[in-house]
Amino acid sequence: MGISYKNLDRTAAFSELEKAAPVDLKISLTAERIKSANISVGGGLTYNYAAKAVNDDITSILQKLADEQELIAKYNELLAGEFMNVGENRKVMHQMTRGELAKDVLFEGKNLREFYRAQQNKIYDFVGKVHGGEIKGSTGKPFDTVCQIGIGGSDLGPRALYLAMANYVEPILDAHFISNVDPDDANAVLERVDLETTLFILVSKSGTTQETLANKNFVVEMSKKAGIDGFDPSAHLIAVTSETSPLANSDDVLAAFFMDDFIGGRYSSSSAVGGAVLSLAFGKDVFEEFLSGAHEADKAALESDISKNAALMDAMIGVYERNVLGYPSTAVLPYSQALSRFPAHLQQLDMESNGKCVNRAGESMNYSTGPVIFGEPGTNGQHSFYQLLHQGTDIVPLQFIGFKESQIDFDLDYEGSTSQAKLKANLIAQIVAFAKGASNDNPNKNFPGGRPSSLIVGEKLTPRALGALLAHFENKVMFQGFCWNINSFDQEGVQLGKILTKQVLGGGEMDEALVALKDMMSI
Amino acid sequence: MGISYKNLDRTAAFSELEKAAPVDLKISLTAERIKSANISVGGGLTYNYAAKAVNDDITSILQKLADEQELIAKYNELLAGEFMNVGENRKVMHQMTRGELAKDVLFEGKNLREFYRAQQNKIYDFVGKVHGGEIKGSTGKPFDTVCQIGIGGSDLGPRALYLAMANYVEPILDAHFISNVDPDDANAVLERVDLETTLFILVSKSGTTQETLANKNFVVEMSKKAGIDGFDPSAHLIAVTSETSPLANSDDVLAAFFMDDFIGGRYSSSSAVGGAVLSLAFGKDVFEEFLSGAHEADKAALESDISKNAALMDAMIGVYERNVLGYPSTAVLPYSQALSRFPAHLQQLDMESNGKCVNRAGESMNYSTGPVIFGEPGTNGQHSFYQLLHQGTDIVPLQFIGFKESQIDFDLDYEGSTSQAKLKANLIAQIVAFAKGASNDNPNKNFPGGRPSSLIVGEKLTPRALGALLAHFENKVMFQGFCWNINSFDQEGVQLGKILTKQVLGGGEMDEALVALKDMMSI
Repeated sequence: MGISYKNLDRTAAFSELEKAAPVDLKISLTAERIKSANISVGGGLTYNYAAKAVNDDITSILQKLADEQELIAKYNELLAGEFMNVGENRKVMHQMTRGELAKDVLFEGKNLREFYRAQQNKIYDFVGKVHGGEIKGSTGKPFDTVCQIGIGGSDLGPRALYLAMANYVEPILDAHFISNVDPDDANAVLERVDLETTLFILVSKSGTTQETLANKNFVVEMSKKAGIDGFDPSAHLIAVTSETSPLANSDDVLAAFFMDDFIGGRYSSSSAVGGAVLSLAFGKDVFEEFLSGAHEADKAALESDISKNAALMDAMIGVYERNVLGYPSTAVLPYSQALSRFPAHLQQLDMESNGKCVNRAGESMNYSTGPVIFGEPGTNGQHSFYQLLHQGTDIVPLQFIGFKESQIDFDLDYEGSTSQAKLKANLIAQIVAFAKGASNDNPNKNFPGGRPSSLIVGEKLTPRALGALLAHFENKVMFQGFCWNINSFDQEGVQLGKILTKQVLGGGEMDEALVALKDMMSI
Repeated sequence: MGISYKNLDRTAAFSELEKAAPVDLKISLTAERIKSANISVGGGLTYNYAAKAVNDDITSILQKLADEQELIAKYNELLAGEFMNVGENRKVMHQMTRGELAKDVLFEGKNLREFYRAQQNKIYDFVGKVHGGEIKGSTGKPFDTVCQIGIGGSDLGPRALYLAMANYVEPILDAHFISNVDPDDANAVLERVDLETTLFILVSKSGTTQETLANKNFVVEMSKKAGIDGFDPSAHLIAVTSETSPLANSDDVLAAFFMDDFIGGRYSSSSAVGGAVLSLAFGKDVFEEFLSGAHEADKAALESDISKNAALMDAMIGVYERNVLGYPSTAVLPYSQALSRFPAHLQQLDMESNGKCVNRAGESMNYSTGPVIFGEPGTNGQHSFYQLLHQGTDIVPLQFIGFKESQIDFDLDYEGSTSQAKLKANLIAQIVAFAKGASNDNPNKNFPGGRPSSLIVGEKLTPRALGALLAHFENKVMFQGFCWNINSFDQEGVQLGKILTKQVLGGGEMDEALVALKDMMSI
């Protein structure tokens, strides 16, 4: 008994996978295959892998690999509160923010589920008072805008989710985001908002993030400079931080809501980090629906049969593509303009989690880990980088996302079809074009095909569907990390840059290259 | 005499390059190297390649390769009006839209330079009347907003450039963009603009782009539905198209401005495609300054000495990284929030131009061509995907861009430094961290280093600098295409998807996979 951790290339299943006969997508993508290769994601979404270069032989080996690497058991350990973030000796609790899948987890006498729910309830209580006009700006005007100040996980996820919902649900408060330390970012956002009616949310787990503190200072100083009679910056600022951070009990803020070290930044959209801004923008019910969708996907990911577990299938096919077929990147292609920044969130989620070159035990490995992730919404991408995807020298696996209905009900017929029908027709045409290609006597117009894709499809991009979509990818990344035997929950790779930045700004001793570059950039 | 075209792997210089001893960046990035590895780009920008894994031996072989592949001679042929887009039998004339570098080029009796200038002057004349209030909306209100309807090259470049300038130059008309055929895109933009004061620009070279025509119809029908007394949609719509397109003489539009087949979509930002929207937004002077910067970079790219030609050096180092070192992707990392969508433009420019698997003569090749391009602004990216860049199993070459000053003059000191100083300190810290890495007894905190980057640096992101930046990358991509012996100016890879989309919407005979997917998506 006990779970064992071993490298991918030490498993019997991986050796078997390397020997498996490859699948010719030009032949395998049949109508029958499309109808059968479906798995429920949760949240009303379906994952279809018909256009992936796998068959029953390969998926049965992927099942063996999942079993041999004990992926579901490891997920259960994570849910049970084991210290899965081994490098930092932390639990990994983001799934707990959206529902109950395991027994209660206690830490230093604290029940974590109760803690996360209590924070979210405190947020709802606060949100109710803001929406009801009980909490107003310092000059007596009700708040109509919320502005998140945060970077990385405090920005990308919440921003992508806000944009994904803002056309479907009329925002109660419009949301803006300041992230970059570039002063042009804060200046531009501050020009667009009315300070008297804007509530700022300062988001930093440690309370020490350089960019976020500089931008907080920027906002506070700018509001002082504005010289508004009776204006009090601290009445316009709330914090989302950890209980031990300097912001937890600061006089600078009206209220503070808490997360903890067991919620990683890139996994924090369903915690207070996303909860404050999204429930201020859309209200409690929308955020709860979003959480329920994420919980459905978390629950579906517990299934040990790979043919019934979308996140597991997606993860294992990804490992096959990365480590057997040798594909170095993956494109995320949502056919929904509302998901315009969702690929940027997944880029962080995936690349920061699995862009690692040492295993869980700190040993280097002989195989590739996380791929480069990029993407833009379709059909826009079709007129941009799809040329390389169709006819480039490298094969890039594709993750399509589509919905039967648009978010906004209004649509128009033009030349025999609505815009939504055109959008969907383009999506399915691409799947077939990538998989099957097309021969042409003109080599310039020849399409080699054999380019794999999968499709996540739903009725409509609702908060519930969005929650499931988010959790699906989080769980996919988690399973891949387990399979590669790496720690997907730390990010030590961001530290060196911070240290050298401090040296540059501190003006002490530093590498001669930094001195020369400092001079070049007039710092 | 005459220019010869041969595959990269047929050149003597490439064999030599493959045998060259690799450079250890941990040692080579010295202060002296940083001070000497600079080339003027034009537009006040400097390209620094000190942190690339090349030394004088390698750059001298790159010079030989550039000479052997006759890259400068090919550029001159292009400027002289040769049919460099061989697949489509077209000239390639985008550099001509921004200045004079070669003799006049005639086509079917038309002087192309005069044609492009005449179009731009017609635009300026029109813009003057809009800004002066001589041309008003149909209900008598002056225009305060412009909205570009276009996709791909008609969208990404102009949108990225608009965003890059909008904080530096106060827009005379605010600009919006509708691109995606997703009805949620048009609906969302139309909710934000006032139809009575908005001038729409319909941009499609062929006048037949499915998405753009559907969105034009969307805008026209929505404006009719709005039921505004006296509103005439045709008084709110101008076209940028080719002279032979259905839009050239349409009653639906107030005015039409022309481009031609010699300006590819992704190269069209300096033609009427960018010219109309950007001069409506910012005025003639700003657009002329932008063109002058681009022209400076075009001129600088004529230099045959690689150590004096930034675009050529950048291109050839890229070939070395792609074909000798085997790196499959490149990240573009502007430390300027104003360049937030510039990587998306470069993604199209590069991947659509050089994502090709047959050479100029239609033969397949035995080497890799264009890489995957992705990127986000710094410091945001540092808190996102930089983890993989520092510690992932693949090496990703990096293209940094930075400016000594921010666009908006206002800045604040916080803990001893301004936001702009922090931004720049982060940038240079990253260059050194990627190149030199850092050893640590904890393997989790170990940084292998040896990760190459280059830096384009300027005083400030002005229209002139922006023009040079754009042209630099266009010319880099052109040189790489010549070196790989491919046609960088067609995009046949986008056609198959269009054909299959028509089959789906037409409802005739189609592949069984399309039938099954059509059913699945409820089309």
